[in-house]
Amino acid sequence: MSGIITLTTDFGLHDEYVGVMKGVILSRSPSSVIVDLSHSVLPQNIMQAGYCIHASYNFFPPGTVHVVVVDPGVGSKRRIILAKIREHLFLAPDNGVLSILINEGNCGEYRLVSCEEIFLFPLSTTFHGRDIFAPVAAALATGMDIQKVGPVISEDSLVEFCFPNVEIAEQESIIQGQVTWVDHFGNLVTNVREEDFIRAGLADATDSVQILVGNGIVAEMALSYADVESGLLVAVFGGRGYLEIAQNCGNAAELLGVVVGGTIRIEKK
Amino acid sequence: MSGIITLTTDFGLHDEYVGVMKGVILSRSPSSVIVDLSHSVLPQNIMQAGYCIHASYNFFPPGTVHVVVVDPGVGSKRRIILAKIREHLFLAPDNGVLSILINEGNCGEYRLVSCEEIFLFPLSTTFHGRDIFAPVAAALATGMDIQKVGPVISEDSLVEFCFPNVEIAEQESIIQGQVTWVDHFGNLVTNVREEDFIRAGLADATDSVQILVGNGIVAEMALSYADVESGLLVAVFGGRGYLEIAQNCGNAAELLGVVVGGTIRIEKK
Amino acid sequence: MSGIITLTTDFGLHDEYVGVMKGVILSRSPSSVIVDLSHSVLPQNIMQAGYCIHASYNFFPPGTVHVVVVDPGVGSKRRIILAKIREHLFLAPDNGVLSILINEGNCGEYRLVSCEEIFLFPLSTTFHGRDIFAPVAAALATGMDIQKVGPVISEDSLVEFCFPNVEIAEQESIIQGQVTWVDHFGNLVTNVREEDFIRAGLADATDSVQILVGNGIVAEMALSYADVESGLLVAVFGGRGYLEIAQNCGNAAELLGVVVGGTIRIEKK
Repeated sequence: MSGIITLTTDFGLHDEYVGVMKGVILSRSPSSVIVDLSHSVLPQNIMQAGYCIHASYNFFPPGTVHVVVVDPGVGSKRRIILAKIREHLFLAPDNGVLSILINEGNCGEYRLVSCEEIFLFPLSTTFHGRDIFAPVAAALATGMDIQKVGPVISEDSLVEFCFPNVEIAEQESIIQGQVTWVDHFGNLVTNVREEDFIRAGLADATDSVQILVGNGIVAEMALSYADVESGLLVAVFGGRGYLEIAQNCGNAAELLGVVVGGTIRIEKK
Repeated sequence: MSGIITLTTDFGLHDEYVGVMKGVILSRSPSSVIVDLSHSVLPQNIMQAGYCIHASYNFFPPGTVHVVVVDPGVGSKRRIILAKIREHLFLAPDNGVLSILINEGNCGEYRLVSCEEIFLFPLSTTFHGRDIFAPVAAALATGMDIQKVGPVISEDSLVEFCFPNVEIAEQESIIQGQVTWVDHFGNLVTNVREEDFIRAGLADATDSVQILVGNGIVAEMALSYADVESGLLVAVFGGRGYLEIAQNCGNAAELLGVVVGGTIRIEKK
Repeated sequence: MSGIITLTTDFGLHDEYVGVMKGVILSRSPSSVIVDLSHSVLPQNIMQAGYCIHASYNFFPPGTVHVVVVDPGVGSKRRIILAKIREHLFLAPDNGVLSILINEGNCGEYRLVSCEEIFLFPLSTTFHGRDIFAPVAAALATGMDIQKVGPVISEDSLVEFCFPNVEIAEQESIIQGQVTWVDHFGNLVTNVREEDFIRAGLADATDSVQILVGNGIVAEMALSYADVESGLLVAVFGGRGYLEIAQNCGNAAELLGVVVGGTIRIEKK
């Protein structure tokens, strides 16, 4: 039992919302350690939140409770679920935000969050992060058995979110992917992984590929940003394990005019 | 004794100011847990800070020390006060930021912060958050008796800040209020509460009211944002207990052209 | 052994990067308390990061581990160093970000971070904050002897960064400095200290100096912002111990059109 709780939301840090969730958690579980992953997920952007928690959870100890509140359906009849995957616990709305984790073939256990005796009353219709997610996370962090959260539900019953596919034309050695996150530095994080290069027969040909993205062409793949001169574009496999497009000492997103959802195409020069 | 300290400031998170306050607190009280409520109060905006702490404090355990540093008079002769209200402790400049809490009829105890032996020296004239608020909060969190903070002062002697009133024309069933906070989603938080609807005779007539705000009219009141179609405006009683104007999956503040201080008018259709 | 770890980066809070570093730290050192100083250092701005940690470290207890990751050379052959200065530990890239601390004549001990057995593998080439800085900080916070970090290196071998000098024309009583930080309020923090006024023979003449900065002239030096009327410019020695230019209840940076790196000139009226 680690006692760590992570938070991933689209709440921003402008308002007291995140702080109030922490107040509820600490009221119920005073020794919990709470870590902010990101509160800057674009409002209601399920894709971003999914990639964020997927890239992060494994750097925390087993037993960590990961709370993901990107929840356009708050107050409606959407379900809230608990997923236990690889010794980590995830609390999230049943809107597919965990699909990317679940579809990796991790053998998970899923439960409907219905332990109303733990919720914070009076229950609001607009802030379940405070009234449901926070108290349930606190209970789990203090060691409550997950059976008490609610009944098991089947994986098939979960809402699925279609995370963007990487399309590979093996014969032409073309990879087509998508920009899934623009980070603070303006680096474009994509959904393309090293294994996609292998499938496309490009793994040993990184010297001879070019990458089309936005209004530009990236001619160089490298191991680190600093491998190219200041101001030049470069593609690297970044900290998330995905291909990233960066401008050394610059902002690739601004330079290329690309936002989340933009297409990226990798082909032979 | 909870050992929790909350921080509400207009310092932003851009600078090291909040981190330095935490350093001072942890130097004096190593086991304190510090929670950020908001550091995005508009510079010197006493109204915003007051609503923020008022909406938040009660989600923390009794004994929590709430530090509010929105302090246009820093370095001048303004007083710093300790208020004990409903088993919570508040440290704030004597500029009315706590008026909304005090005027609810909570029977409080007020003290002048004058325990100079606890302050951090050399005392700056620009950063009392670090030099006075942080060390006094740390001392309180470690269980120092509040009598040691300084002498009792009367409620009458406190500077009062006029938080905006809700005006109700009962015969015409009109409620007039103000936008007190624009949140990260662009939701407009107002100072209108459910009890104002009762006083105006509109409590059972929410189907037949319209709300004039900025350059728009909100025709629908609902229980949650998702009760209206994506893109539509809706009014809900939000997590703070106040009426909020939201655009489902959108940004009401931008759509309506409204900022903090804007007027809201509720009337029969 | 304080167990406190501070973080100063240019990562921003938009992404999960800071949270993931905390996950790695807490996985290795569960009882560490982690404090964010600033994650808003301008991308790759070594000067800003240096001033930030210099202004902050001393408000934490001895034994605190300060992690500074502003690291344009990540993944290249640049070294990572541990500096022990005045009972504080600093982990930083060897790019001069600690020069301002080192050049104060603090007698430090410097080591090359080469304890690969502690690093997080597989090592990325883009995120040493997670893979090297975080695990080494955690090990130090749990009491690992600094000898195990790596061999001693000489101060002479360290990369030096030229922090901007204050130039003083003693005969004309002119001080010329630089804006090193623009804070959240728009206050211009400079590199000019009280001792520079003494050297220029202006210490007792603050009533008769004027300050040229950007497109304006500051006519007034005071002890606190509130010493001048709302809207007026004022120069004060701020919380960092450096001269700051502020507009009372306003934004000096916007008013004067000044950014980091701008020149400031102090002279007799």
